[in-house]
Amino acid sequence: MTANNRIVSGMRPTGPLHLGHHFGVLANWLKLQEEYDCYFFVADWHAMTSEYSNPKRIKQFVPELAKDWLAAGLDPNKCVIYQQSQIKEIAELHLLLSMITPLGWLERCPTYKDMKEQLAAKDLNTYGFLGYPVLMTTDIIMFRPGAVPVGEDQLPHLELNREIARRFNYLNCPEDKPFFPEAQAMLTKESKLPGLDGRKMSKSYGNSIALGEDMDSVRKKVMSMLTDTNRMRKTDPGDPGICNLFPYHKIMTDAGHLPEIEKGCRDASWGCVDCKRLLMESMERFLTPIHERRAQYDKDPDLLWDVLNQGNAKARAAAQETMASVRELIGFDF
Amino acid sequence: MTANNRIVSGMRPTGPLHLGHHFGVLANWLKLQEEYDCYFFVADWHAMTSEYSNPKRIKQFVPELAKDWLAAGLDPNKCVIYQQSQIKEIAELHLLLSMITPLGWLERCPTYKDMKEQLAAKDLNTYGFLGYPVLMTTDIIMFRPGAVPVGEDQLPHLELNREIARRFNYLNCPEDKPFFPEAQAMLTKESKLPGLDGRKMSKSYGNSIALGEDMDSVRKKVMSMLTDTNRMRKTDPGDPGICNLFPYHKIMTDAGHLPEIEKGCRDASWGCVDCKRLLMESMERFLTPIHERRAQYDKDPDLLWDVLNQGNAKARAAAQETMASVRELIGFDF
Repeated sequence: MTANNRIVSGMRPTGPLHLGHHFGVLANWLKLQEEYDCYFFVADWHAMTSEYSNPKRIKQFVPELAKDWLAAGLDPNKCVIYQQSQIKEIAELHLLLSMITPLGWLERCPTYKDMKEQLAAKDLNTYGFLGYPVLMTTDIIMFRPGAVPVGEDQLPHLELNREIARRFNYLNCPEDKPFFPEAQAMLTKESKLPGLDGRKMSKSYGNSIALGEDMDSVRKKVMSMLTDTNRMRKTDPGDPGICNLFPYHKIMTDAGHLPEIEKGCRDASWGCVDCKRLLMESMERFLTPIHERRAQYDKDPDLLWDVLNQGNAKARAAAQETMASVRELIGFDF
Repeated sequence: MTANNRIVSGMRPTGPLHLGHHFGVLANWLKLQEEYDCYFFVADWHAMTSEYSNPKRIKQFVPELAKDWLAAGLDPNKCVIYQQSQIKEIAELHLLLSMITPLGWLERCPTYKDMKEQLAAKDLNTYGFLGYPVLMTTDIIMFRPGAVPVGEDQLPHLELNREIARRFNYLNCPEDKPFFPEAQAMLTKESKLPGLDGRKMSKSYGNSIALGEDMDSVRKKVMSMLTDTNRMRKTDPGDPGICNLFPYHKIMTDAGHLPEIEKGCRDASWGCVDCKRLLMESMERFLTPIHERRAQYDKDPDLLWDVLNQGNAKARAAAQETMASVRELIGFDF
């Protein structure tokens, strides 16, 4: 019964994706879709937990997020791309799981305080925000995956997820026939691409390059990046270890070039402008196919909605199957 | 837009109804259905908040509760009788309202601590139990009623209900066009029928008479009721003020007989057995039509499910209308 080859993951639709998102998360999804039965969802109800005072903001980012994914190379023939709020069964299972989740589990969740601090500008003392791990659990166990791709910082959530699944099984299933599998963590090796200024890449820091950004804007940003600020003249030797550019080469430029780049910097045989031109080549090689795929969806928005509608239908069918079993297990099969 | 003549109320399906429920709540519903557009629901998801560790218990009581209502005289041509868990839109609105409900409102809710004490035998430190006023609010505002019939003790809930409705309106509607009406309290004059032993009538005290109880059992219970225990002999004068029987006569026996009963007791011209026989006549007059209506549904259970299915369809249509507007207001109309 258990779809052990299944994987579920999602993102909140709160803005355009940038290179940091790509190398941190999407690049991994692209690999996963080749091997697993992947369910990727636009977490629009989740976005409500922090955007509840202006939920209308979310709407535009739902198709934009799906477009970013498709442009990056997610293939709807290889994975299911769907929108959380279109799977109403999630709201039903969320309500049922809320009844069995001890308050203490949520109050003690280490990410609860962290998130509240991170988003201190918003009033997050809400019932829904306290319960967002219940909603995350619902998102996941609804599709009964064997594993969930997570970063280290998400491990406490996954633990909570397993606790809730275990509690449901304990209360409602014969001991030898648990219904919800306990999804295992699939720890992802994240490639952390820093922002243009070396800090974490974030739209709010103004140090990001969006996946959909036009090439002229990308060029301006790259050509004005600060490199090794101790290297005043082209003839001064530089240090790639403190240059903002070098981490980009490490991730985006063909690995064969790296020794040459590093040597050229250290012995000043290679200037920062040359280095930036080379990075622009890498950027173009990387972004051009993304922009081309994006253009198809920009030209014909129906294509995008077709992908979402088909994904929603697949996800809904899977969710309905789960809920039929859940209702039977708890005796709510009227 | 606002259905000001609409009323919503529900009961948890946790056991058979008894005379205390009838005179405390149902008698009022019978009057309301004549004048208002009434929505009465079997609160099966609510029952989960306290019965989550054995939800299968709830199943049998869902049709039984509806049967108790119909037997008591609720008329499906005059009111809508439906089952909460069959209106999936309630789970969706509940999720959305959970995002805007401040935790403090729930933690400070006076009935929260009361209920936890009352049900101390159960572990109610759950997320869903903290949030049950959010679910109650959802149940009510989904149907946008002008009023809700409540007892004094339910006033804090109704206040919370109005606060949440107001907050939704404030966040999502133009100031002059609130979407959810603030339902007014319709304070009901409850006739409190005590239990057979004078304490609160409750199945768990063994002092109740169920609406569906067969007449022999009712007779045994009535004939063995304790009356004025100071009246040792039939010739001793009695005191109706401390007799367990007299409150029953006050509610169930024709008011014209009351002076006669009271006098007969005080001057010992009338014995306790006579008094009990008279009460049995009242019981029979009251319970016979209830039993007759019940027998129809026992004979043909499909009749009962037809009522529920038709009520569910009506309630679902109203809920879908509400949700279409809600989704539009928050920009989730995809």
